[in-house]
Amino acid sequence: MLGEPDFDVLRERAFNLRWATVEPGVIPLTAADPDFPAPPAAVDAIADYLRAPHLCYGPAAGLPDFREAVARRFREHKGASEVGASRVLAANSAASAIALVAAHLLKPGDEVVVQDPVDFLVAESARRAGATLRRWQPVGVRFPIEGLRAAITPSTRMVSVCHPHNPLGSLWDAEEVAAIARLCDERGIALLSDEVWSDVVLDGASFHSLAAHANAACAPWVVYGLSKGYGLAGLRIGAIVAPSDDAATRFAAASGFEQTIEGASTLSQVAAIGALQHGGPWLAEFLRHCAAQRDLATARLSRLHGLRIAAKPSATFVLFVDVRGTGLDEDEAARRIEQFARVRVVPGSPRWFGPGAAGHVRLSLATTRDVLDEALSRIERAWPQIAR
Amino acid sequence: MLGEPDFDVLRERAFNLRWATVEPGVIPLTAADPDFPAPPAAVDAIADYLRAPHLCYGPAAGLPDFREAVARRFREHKGASEVGASRVLAANSAASAIALVAAHLLKPGDEVVVQDPVDFLVAESARRAGATLRRWQPVGVRFPIEGLRAAITPSTRMVSVCHPHNPLGSLWDAEEVAAIARLCDERGIALLSDEVWSDVVLDGASFHSLAAHANAACAPWVVYGLSKGYGLAGLRIGAIVAPSDDAATRFAAASGFEQTIEGASTLSQVAAIGALQHGGPWLAEFLRHCAAQRDLATARLSRLHGLRIAAKPSATFVLFVDVRGTGLDEDEAARRIEQFARVRVVPGSPRWFGPGAAGHVRLSLATTRDVLDEALSRIERAWPQIAR
Repeated sequence: MLGEPDFDVLRERAFNLRWATVEPGVIPLTAADPDFPAPPAAVDAIADYLRAPHLCYGPAAGLPDFREAVARRFREHKGASEVGASRVLAANSAASAIALVAAHLLKPGDEVVVQDPVDFLVAESARRAGATLRRWQPVGVRFPIEGLRAAITPSTRMVSVCHPHNPLGSLWDAEEVAAIARLCDERGIALLSDEVWSDVVLDGASFHSLAAHANAACAPWVVYGLSKGYGLAGLRIGAIVAPSDDAATRFAAASGFEQTIEGASTLSQVAAIGALQHGGPWLAEFLRHCAAQRDLATARLSRLHGLRIAAKPSATFVLFVDVRGTGLDEDEAARRIEQFARVRVVPGSPRWFGPGAAGHVRLSLATTRDVLDEALSRIERAWPQIAR
Repeated sequence: MLGEPDFDVLRERAFNLRWATVEPGVIPLTAADPDFPAPPAAVDAIADYLRAPHLCYGPAAGLPDFREAVARRFREHKGASEVGASRVLAANSAASAIALVAAHLLKPGDEVVVQDPVDFLVAESARRAGATLRRWQPVGVRFPIEGLRAAITPSTRMVSVCHPHNPLGSLWDAEEVAAIARLCDERGIALLSDEVWSDVVLDGASFHSLAAHANAACAPWVVYGLSKGYGLAGLRIGAIVAPSDDAATRFAAASGFEQTIEGASTLSQVAAIGALQHGGPWLAEFLRHCAAQRDLATARLSRLHGLRIAAKPSATFVLFVDVRGTGLDEDEAARRIEQFARVRVVPGSPRWFGPGAAGHVRLSLATTRDVLDEALSRIERAWPQIAR
């Protein structure tokens, strides 16, 4: 079911720090984009659609079947039983969705509370909207609600969470998610939940979406995408789950969807519909593979002197590794890993993950067992040089 | 070569005021989106790409082959012999490209000079950027440069032109285009040229892009797209031709391309590459068909009492018809045409085309000869009721 990567093709097509951008011989464990071919369900849906190759303007908010497929995913797999299709908008990637929601909710001078470390997109989007950031630090790999409470000030206009968490791979339980919603509700603060990783939950754990907590008082905006769970990054297909039907309609007009300025390719939506409707077995196999890759990489890297992994990730296919025990900073560690082991990783630079990522590197594990094994072996062999 | 439309499929897929949105039995001559299936060259390119279904992150600015195919189109068919691939960025539709360029060049309070009438997207984008508009009226179907000169004030920050012109279907010659570039250059004014229609030039006429006039003093930003000439609106694939390689690089960083916030689906780019590289014969046949449709519609509508067409369009597949001779305004004319002839047209509302569109309706002619013939026959038969 999970197909074999064609690495010759990846060397032509996989950009964003991956195969097409590294020197020959270097293994990229960089951007979070699987090496595996897309699910057959997605590819077949495109082929089927193209039997009648009419590629006309789609509806502004997205194809009805796309909106319903995403809503159903949230109802059936993310604990948000009230989400209907009219709360969903098709977006040109989760990244674009985050930027649009931030631009919609924020004005210059507003303050946004984000996690630290965390994927850079909310910070980047807040900066573009003229907002300032406050950061909320984890304890171990958890972000306890007390930390969020302490980070909020009278100027806080929005709280944004990344859940499941990139790069820590952590998950909140239902009660923790509810507590975040309650806190924002009590303080009258907008909430943006980046749930692009929410299909990549490992070991049979449950994911609890903030979309379940939309009500008169609380208005969570949730961002979803198919680049992580289904390997469709190139199709740039994401979704916004608005806090209400009304909010979705107003957002579509205010953010350019109604004017054709924003929107997602219908063919990308068709691929997503295929993946969401018929890609279940593929996803299940992919998740089993991700869990096994995580186990392997965690075990082998933890044995290397100076490396530490705070906890095995419960979600995502990335591993965030503390390199401070080597005495190296994140950039030097990444540089040496590439130089001596011919493996490229993402340094935990403030630019990508916030200051809380200092002293860490991130590895993406969504490749074959053979490639990961080879990358780990290279790192192990080169470790004396890397950490000397 | 030009395939037969499948109207059952169009009734499912053609949104934006078209088949999927009108009452059964109504013929939509509304949004400028062909009824024809996409060129086989585009569809085949997708199928070929999906043989290895790796849909990874593409490069931020677009696939190298896409950028080169667009650049080559400008060099070989739009009189812009200096355009290289590094000036081109792949965008999520021409509409998105217009909004991004406007946001990049404008700040609140800036003044923008646009044509009147003209497609609404530049006005909408300028408004979103906080700019104010001044409008420049045509003489007949021409926009003589003197009108532009008179519209410019000391506060003018940007001039935007739509060329070929939607909805008038007019074309400028090489000298007129050069004069616009010179004028903006002399006054130090930014220039945004919406050339989304530039593949739809009829009767073998030549198109002259403002992209040819980029130099140290003049910095035209050109927007292009494949929705009009190749019927790929659903794929949302457009391009920006920046005034220089440097400007393209800076724009890509400032406007979110480098951050994955902006960008176009790789599959949409692949379809565009196929169309641009191998869709020449298809386009030639489509243009011959559009010219014949224009001739038919112009001849028959001009015979109806109270209708006037200022000049046969030289480009585009839309017809802008003056209904003032009937005593009806644009909304009432459109309403009666739908009620009595069961044909839907776009009223020349200020919202869509500016105040200069008052008293006109716009018809899209990119359907089959049979459908256009039926629509015209219905309008002719119902004319005594419509124009009574």
